[in-house]
Amino acid sequence: MKTFASILQKRVSESASLLCVGLDPHVADLQSADADSALEFCRRLVRLTAPHAAAFKPNAAFFEVFGAPGWSALRKTIETIREESTRLGSHIPVILDAKRGDIATTAEAYARAAFETLGADAITLSPYMGHDSIEPFLGYPERGVFVLCKTSNSGSADLQDVEVRASDGESLPLFLHVARLARGWNRRDNVGLVVGATYPAMLASIRRAAPDQWILVPGVGTQGGDLESALRAGLRADASGLLINISRTIARSADPAKAAEEWRERIELVREQRASTVSGGHSDPA
Amino acid sequence: MKTFASILQKRVSESASLLCVGLDPHVADLQSADADSALEFCRRLVRLTAPHAAAFKPNAAFFEVFGAPGWSALRKTIETIREESTRLGSHIPVILDAKRGDIATTAEAYARAAFETLGADAITLSPYMGHDSIEPFLGYPERGVFVLCKTSNSGSADLQDVEVRASDGESLPLFLHVARLARGWNRRDNVGLVVGATYPAMLASIRRAAPDQWILVPGVGTQGGDLESALRAGLRADASGLLINISRTIARSADPAKAAEEWRERIELVREQRASTVSGGHSDPA
Repeated sequence: MKTFASILQKRVSESASLLCVGLDPHVADLQSADADSALEFCRRLVRLTAPHAAAFKPNAAFFEVFGAPGWSALRKTIETIREESTRLGSHIPVILDAKRGDIATTAEAYARAAFETLGADAITLSPYMGHDSIEPFLGYPERGVFVLCKTSNSGSADLQDVEVRASDGESLPLFLHVARLARGWNRRDNVGLVVGATYPAMLASIRRAAPDQWILVPGVGTQGGDLESALRAGLRADASGLLINISRTIARSADPAKAAEEWRERIELVREQRASTVSGGHSDPA
Repeated sequence: MKTFASILQKRVSESASLLCVGLDPHVADLQSADADSALEFCRRLVRLTAPHAAAFKPNAAFFEVFGAPGWSALRKTIETIREESTRLGSHIPVILDAKRGDIATTAEAYARAAFETLGADAITLSPYMGHDSIEPFLGYPERGVFVLCKTSNSGSADLQDVEVRASDGESLPLFLHVARLARGWNRRDNVGLVVGATYPAMLASIRRAAPDQWILVPGVGTQGGDLESALRAGLRADASGLLINISRTIARSADPAKAAEEWRERIELVREQRASTVSGGHSDPA
């Protein structure tokens, strides 16, 4: 059976890209403050950047702010990504950035909303409520989750950096405790992590704690994270396993297609260096 | 200026109730699996229970599962609560149970979605991303947040119970660290906590760490939490400051109005005992 990780890896290979294009229809970037403008913004961005995108990441908040019409726009945005996938002959996964987290029948309802009602391939989740807030999402074939681990904002230190005592008595920051938990939750090859580009040393330690899992990396571009540092810290041994999310830097570019292509190429350059270092000169293993 | 806490306290006094009626239109309880049935379910429950409710707590997931029509149903449910407030001449706060958590402009969009688009009075939030994921919600006059602290599920132990080292070197469980943070965030009298009824000893320790803040308590009823234990552990010194949420036990009752009234009375009985203990026989200080 195909797993979410294998589906994502297939798209990464077909596109030769680790670029995740963020779809953030922030009201400041729209023609007018309504759901139709949000949809137009996203459709244009999807159509221009799809050939260079390993994945798309629509941000639920910027649709919810428009109420029911916003949710229609979100669903239609995902449909547009499906159309582009068909046109390109390559399934582009959709990661719904919703940071949900609840339990029992509530979590089941969030999973249905994301995977069935909206048709997303994956969703971002908060780990604060523990394993029974994650499990209802894990039984969906071919779908995945990305668990918040170390986020790109300065306030992430409030909880994520506090030193905790693990069950084996070892002391480690909470974000590494979460990385270990998420590794245990990954029995179906469908649990990734979210780690901000703004903390490359922490990203490197998370990669050591979760050597095989996908890591979604926001924070490059407007939030100041350095692309090359993030890649060097977070790539897997096979020079894959990392999705670099770029949202506004591409959306606000005069030529989003060219901007996406350039980001893809900058990423590939580092991947090729890594692959040649690891394999002693052989080509990209993706 | 009125604060969220003062608005909630006013309703508690006017209704002589600490009962929060949860609005969980789970598909299993609906006439048919659609948004119209969800709205009908909620409207009926609101109209029957409003006189006994200190607050209502609609659960976003059970509306989202129906997509855009679900969001319309959520908005109309909140409008129905406003109509009942007008009819009763007493504002009944609406706590949107959405457990959001994100940063910067995304958090601003979630705050607008909850407080402006939907018109809720308060929202539940996850603390995992830290203070800058909470602050965008705190500038709204008369609105509030409830931060997840110790949740009612067994998986809550995964993160919330781990021992952390505070900045002063003291060792304490993460949920108490969160309670302390939330106390610091409460400068505008609008930050409460969510603590499950299933862990009364932890509720008591959280009350000591946050002696003045509102605590929303799910988990009584179907989740097995004991009402009296939760009240004894969580009431403030003034025998207020606690909202006991009941969802399905009321919704599935043959007579929801009577069920809500009985829960309200069971709560008042403990409050009166507490008030007489504290004040030496004087009446309810609420």
